[in-house]
Amino acid sequence: MLKIDHIGIAVPSVEEAKKFVKDAFGLEMEEIEIVASQKVKVGRVRFENIILEFLEPTAPNSPISGFIEKRGGGLHHIAISVENVKGTLKSLKEKGVSLIDGEPRGGAAYKWIAFLSPKNPAKTLIELVETKGGIDEN
Amino acid sequence: MLKIDHIGIAVPSVEEAKKFVKDAFGLEMEEIEIVASQKVKVGRVRFENIILEFLEPTAPNSPISGFIEKRGGGLHHIAISVENVKGTLKSLKEKGVSLIDGEPRGGAAYKWIAFLSPKNPAKTLIELVETKGGIDEN
Repeated sequence: MLKIDHIGIAVPSVEEAKKFVKDAFGLEMEEIEIVASQKVKVGRVRFENIILEFLEPTAPNSPISGFIEKRGGGLHHIAISVENVKGTLKSLKEKGVSLIDGEPRGGAAYKWIAFLSPKNPAKTLIELVETKGGIDEN
Repeated sequence: MLKIDHIGIAVPSVEEAKKFVKDAFGLEMEEIEIVASQKVKVGRVRFENIILEFLEPTAPNSPISGFIEKRGGGLHHIAISVENVKGTLKSLKEKGVSLIDGEPRGGAAYKWIAFLSPKNPAKTLIELVETKGGIDEN
């Protein structure tokens, strides 16, 4: 059965989100990381069943800058764990699902990632993630 | 440790979302319910660790109609399971967290629910849900 790995949330300030989740819910954010390739700061908050991944742009041309400018931030994407991103992309392409990434990309925290287009009937930006250390090296 | 009960996704058509999640990911949507009090159709899709709750407005004045008109749909809210919605609201109020519902409301699938304002540093509409059958009847 498929699992949702994390929920991505774009925010103007990861530090302020950290303070809020701690004050309101007593939850700690993990150490904030800078992912230079994506021009984002990332702060993860672990719930029992899922991770919230807070993302703050570090440059005006970060992939989430436009989203923050337009909406002030908010729920941005959900990431589904799959065993094999490459194979899943191939199968989705055959089914006519609209993709952003036709091929898997290397991710910082994951072996492979790829985004599907949000122009699907679920109206949701969906990321596929393949965790490191799997048997299948593609 | 806190758990995210579900992710709420506003869509123009729950039937089309149902077809998409089945075709793309092989997941079945549970029987679609109409929640007349909220003027929505609800279709739930169970992942291993979390539920996606697809919501379609059934009237122009449904709470999600404006969101669909403005954005075409998308990730709408996250719901956190708490043991006692009333007590959590009280504690959040004392901490100065901005709320939509000052008091718990009865929910269709839950004993009590309440929404916090999305104008928090996480920029996210957060629902609190208390599952039925708990010991504490408030």
